[in-house]
Amino acid sequence: MTQARLKHFGWGREGETMTAEEERFALDKYRHRLGVDDFDEKRVPGLHELQLPAPRIAPPRSLAAFCSSELYDRALHTYGKSFPETVRGMLGDYANAPDVVAYPCNEAEVAAVLDWAGGVGAAVIPFGGGSSVVGGVEPRLDRARYRGTVTLDTSRMGRVIEVDRASRAARIEAGAFGPALENQLKPHGLTLRHFPQSFEYSTLGGWIATRSGGHFATLYTHIDDFVESIVVLTPKGRLETRRLPGSGAGPSPDRMFMGSEGIFGVITEAWMRLQDRPRFRAGGAVRFADFFAAARAVRAVGQAGLFPANCRVLDPEEALNTGAGDGRSAIMVLAFESGDHPVEAWMARALECCRDHGGTPETGEGDAHREGAAGRWRTAFIRMPYGRERAVPRAIINDTFETAITWDRFERFHDSVKAATLAAIETATGRPGQVTCRFTHVYPDGPAPYFTFHALGRHGGLIEQWQAIKNAASDALIAAGGTITHHHAVGRDHRPWYDRQRPELFAAALKAAKRALDPQGLLNPGVLIDP
Amino acid sequence: MTQARLKHFGWGREGETMTAEEERFALDKYRHRLGVDDFDEKRVPGLHELQLPAPRIAPPRSLAAFCSSELYDRALHTYGKSFPETVRGMLGDYANAPDVVAYPCNEAEVAAVLDWAGGVGAAVIPFGGGSSVVGGVEPRLDRARYRGTVTLDTSRMGRVIEVDRASRAARIEAGAFGPALENQLKPHGLTLRHFPQSFEYSTLGGWIATRSGGHFATLYTHIDDFVESIVVLTPKGRLETRRLPGSGAGPSPDRMFMGSEGIFGVITEAWMRLQDRPRFRAGGAVRFADFFAAARAVRAVGQAGLFPANCRVLDPEEALNTGAGDGRSAIMVLAFESGDHPVEAWMARALECCRDHGGTPETGEGDAHREGAAGRWRTAFIRMPYGRERAVPRAIINDTFETAITWDRFERFHDSVKAATLAAIETATGRPGQVTCRFTHVYPDGPAPYFTFHALGRHGGLIEQWQAIKNAASDALIAAGGTITHHHAVGRDHRPWYDRQRPELFAAALKAAKRALDPQGLLNPGVLIDP
Repeated sequence: MTQARLKHFGWGREGETMTAEEERFALDKYRHRLGVDDFDEKRVPGLHELQLPAPRIAPPRSLAAFCSSELYDRALHTYGKSFPETVRGMLGDYANAPDVVAYPCNEAEVAAVLDWAGGVGAAVIPFGGGSSVVGGVEPRLDRARYRGTVTLDTSRMGRVIEVDRASRAARIEAGAFGPALENQLKPHGLTLRHFPQSFEYSTLGGWIATRSGGHFATLYTHIDDFVESIVVLTPKGRLETRRLPGSGAGPSPDRMFMGSEGIFGVITEAWMRLQDRPRFRAGGAVRFADFFAAARAVRAVGQAGLFPANCRVLDPEEALNTGAGDGRSAIMVLAFESGDHPVEAWMARALECCRDHGGTPETGEGDAHREGAAGRWRTAFIRMPYGRERAVPRAIINDTFETAITWDRFERFHDSVKAATLAAIETATGRPGQVTCRFTHVYPDGPAPYFTFHALGRHGGLIEQWQAIKNAASDALIAAGGTITHHHAVGRDHRPWYDRQRPELFAAALKAAKRALDPQGLLNPGVLIDP
Repeated sequence: MTQARLKHFGWGREGETMTAEEERFALDKYRHRLGVDDFDEKRVPGLHELQLPAPRIAPPRSLAAFCSSELYDRALHTYGKSFPETVRGMLGDYANAPDVVAYPCNEAEVAAVLDWAGGVGAAVIPFGGGSSVVGGVEPRLDRARYRGTVTLDTSRMGRVIEVDRASRAARIEAGAFGPALENQLKPHGLTLRHFPQSFEYSTLGGWIATRSGGHFATLYTHIDDFVESIVVLTPKGRLETRRLPGSGAGPSPDRMFMGSEGIFGVITEAWMRLQDRPRFRAGGAVRFADFFAAARAVRAVGQAGLFPANCRVLDPEEALNTGAGDGRSAIMVLAFESGDHPVEAWMARALECCRDHGGTPETGEGDAHREGAAGRWRTAFIRMPYGRERAVPRAIINDTFETAITWDRFERFHDSVKAATLAAIETATGRPGQVTCRFTHVYPDGPAPYFTFHALGRHGGLIEQWQAIKNAASDALIAAGGTITHHHAVGRDHRPWYDRQRPELFAAALKAAKRALDPQGLLNPGVLIDP
């Protein structure tokens, strides 16, 4: 079955979009929330209306068969899926389009692209699914320094190469998209169970390069812990780490590449730790009078050593917006799963923790994961990324940012970040907006709060308005001790705050390592560090 | 209460040694195992019989108050606790003694030592408890290149500075020894629960610098996962990571220093994730017909997502040697613990996994952790390090090495490593020895096998004999795909195999990072990389 190709603008494949009902639901909420009747809707130009700068470089004959400078390929690889990128896409601004898009099928072709780029002095942008919301894949760089830009798209390397059932591990090519990866593991009774919101349109290599946060709300939150070994192609050559269940031999080589966002090399494959497919489940939703009461329950569950697969909390407004609640209660979505044993004992103890903190479990039977408040939230979660391409043309400013903070600081942190963001919305747009919060992941020592904001902007000023709000929110969370990102990554957009967050001497060490592996500074320039 | 000072030769404090009964038990076993009646026992010189080279450097007046070049301090800091170091200590060879031992009490004093050493061109060896068994603290270096050696002993920085009960975390100085650290946490109802075999005589900073493996056999095996943030003093300045429960902002800065074995800087403090003190326990021992049957049960338990605190397996000979078994069965020591909930459901399911693979639970009541086969093994485990100083003077060659391997390769791996080691013992010593194996830690994708070997050497050739055996064992485990160390670290002794194990380009990145933080190459030269 041939799938439609990815949309050059917006989420998913050509022909996919929100249903009319989803759009009506979302717009009604926006009308109510932002106090407007009608939206100033702008038309988004079609692919063939776009004017791209002429390519500055062309691949040699030996690479031409898997390279393209066609309009579609260059447009598709100009942007990730961030708010400002979507605005620029809507405005038809493709000035930063890559000159060439390479689709290598194997390591030799990846190495050949790196060699060619090194020879002509072109930058190389590794590209998985292109779902970055932090400017991680846009060729936004010094065009005087680089004689061209090659986007290296790994999507033709998507095979599960080898499965080790005894160790529950598989060797997987980095370009495997979520669904294709799971489909190849399914006959073996195995699953990676890493389901970021971008699951359908992101790749294993992208997950590793950005320290993606996945399905599990506790314990196995980041992709990091599933990586057994990796292969990276750098401009200086090939690097393969040893396949080990654990090691104490020096600093972990794998961990140096996790979160490296393509600045050291191209991840081409990895041995990944897998799970048995879950056979036992227990779960449901729990209501709380307010968000902080729910947070205290989450803390109790998180510190009890029960390790629920899901333990997400929505504040009342977020619960209302996603259809999971009525706006009067905070909702906890709680679930346990196992491929080995019934999990009722675990669920029972977690519910006790919730009751201790004033929680009221939602009654109901069946697969709680897919029904009730939990199920409604799950559907909204999966469909959410389709909203941006419909909101931006209506000048709706809607974005999310996520962080992590220890429990001792959480309440004050939450209030200060929310207040700063709300104030910035009012200043930037001249009218109140909305800021909601949920927890996406939970650690024994603190939560990962995820904020969503909604504002009404105006065409012509959307990027500046968004940037003002983004700056205020980011300043607030860095000032209050959080991280600039828990799982969206740094890219180009988070650089100013990442630079404040990370120790200066660590940046010096990263730069030195970068020079050792990529002496010409070709790879993803501007991401994480200046080349 | 003032404690006796640490012994300059052997394990523990002055006055501490094996009991007569322990020694008789051990020697009887050795007589039987090695087929000898009597041992050729050599006298170990006392402290005041030692001849140390004259110190080549002296600290400036401003540092003199916390520095020493006294015989005791220099002798104590000449060696860790490895087999060859113990032989050289027995031979009175202290040629590599440091010139000066510094005992800084705070960061300012650590920085002053680094500055002074940089000024005079002296190497600096960070020293926690000195329990390294891999040549990690011995000033074995190019004396032409370095104008002197300063050992920087962190033992005067041992306070728990701050406790955050809400997040269950504490800020702890790096020089805290295990017992003092736990004693300071106890009034808060908290515990780090990191109990490496060296617990009494090793420090938090040492654990982090070497990626120590601790109490937990599953899940939280390495100290790595307990580190929330760290402070490191490098020759280029101070580095402090942000205190976060989780982050996806670039490669983890903490992880670069975990396992760095003092080559980048001196870890001075860390925020550590803690546990509630356990209130619920279940545990016991399970017998298996052979080691591989036990291994299959361990795999089932490890992949079930139950996360036992203890899940160690002794092969029949190792069970016999430690008094935990009769030599006919492999023994699994299994335990669950929780500060939150009863763990019977967990234990019951783990025992089912054991029975599925032919295991027979040992019957008995009470605190299984301290009684029965599990308790006998635990006592032997804690007392084991005292044996070396009594064995070496009798020309008994006894050492351990540890590794990790995925399940698919485990059985062949075990057999080839064991056979290579047995053969090397016979070649090196002219008589058969013994090689036993246990699992210290277990991952879903593979175990961490820990080998012990016993041989009878001869005085005058002990180090060469040991080295021949060590080489054969290390060659075998690297050839068969293992890691040269799961938790003993690399130091100077594991360098040849570490160099084969790690990707060359990762070594290049490490070297570059080292040059950025320690441009003069002063810190712990020869460990992990050549400076």
